[in-house]
Amino acid sequence: MRRVPQDELRVAKIRNGTVIDHIPAGRALQVLKILGIKGTEGHIVTILMNVPSKRLGKKDLVKIEDIAVRADQAQLIALIAPDASLNIVSNYEVKEKHRPTPPDVVEGLVRCPNMMCISNKRDEPIVPKLSVESKDPVGLRCVYCRAILSADEISACLVE
Amino acid sequence: MRRVPQDELRVAKIRNGTVIDHIPAGRALQVLKILGIKGTEGHIVTILMNVPSKRLGKKDLVKIEDIAVRADQAQLIALIAPDASLNIVSNYEVKEKHRPTPPDVVEGLVRCPNMMCISNKRDEPIVPKLSVESKDPVGLRCVYCRAILSADEISACLVE
Repeated sequence: MRRVPQDELRVAKIRNGTVIDHIPAGRALQVLKILGIKGTEGHIVTILMNVPSKRLGKKDLVKIEDIAVRADQAQLIALIAPDASLNIVSNYEVKEKHRPTPPDVVEGLVRCPNMMCISNKRDEPIVPKLSVESKDPVGLRCVYCRAILSADEISACLVE
Repeated sequence: MRRVPQDELRVAKIRNGTVIDHIPAGRALQVLKILGIKGTEGHIVTILMNVPSKRLGKKDLVKIEDIAVRADQAQLIALIAPDASLNIVSNYEVKEKHRPTPPDVVEGLVRCPNMMCISNKRDEPIVPKLSVESKDPVGLRCVYCRAILSADEISACLVE
């Protein structure tokens, strides 16, 4: 008899949508922020935090019904959740399984953490641009002022 | 045969902890903020957003394992979720069921939204204090500068 994993017991399958699994424990709310989900949009969303995981010890998990995650959002998720898997579910079955990879450059999605940086001046039409210096642990570096941004700071620096 | 409600299908029962049910759709993340839960604390948390509800049409629901909600937190939750029920679960059974009620005065938990208010000056030792002027819809009023705070603004004005 197959032993049912803990998170399958906690939440039932969704019909259509995206399941983001193997998020590091405690980062689900950052993933929601990357996806621009506050809850007021009306989609059915299920979030699990700190559930047991064979691979990670503990993990977070996000299920969003009737929503497809964009490629640039998936790349940002890869930065804060390097082991994440992205499952596209259709009619209760996993139709596609992606393992998003971090980009080399993040342009226009995350602002520089240095408020004195030229890319943060309102009177300058400069699009923020950060290069991914390291992927494990994640470190981004502003191409203008060389300020460093860690994985935990990404969700706070998302461009609105 | 009893028809199983939709949210019971979506999430399994918890062993011990608190279930906050009948949160207005889209306000689960505000409830988490009131409770100070970011996910990094390590507790197992389940959040459902925009699930069908017979009473509310749509609702949010939060389950927190191994945590008891404080009385002052429950009062704040009542302000943003007037129909919320708070169930204390022990060994898979609901042992207590509370219907939190809004307070008449909120002291030291929520700051005034007016940054020019004397209660927001760093050099003044004044504890923020807002009176609950109306409960449906919720309106708080600063006792110092008379600025108004609506239910949706409460989570953004929580004292850290």
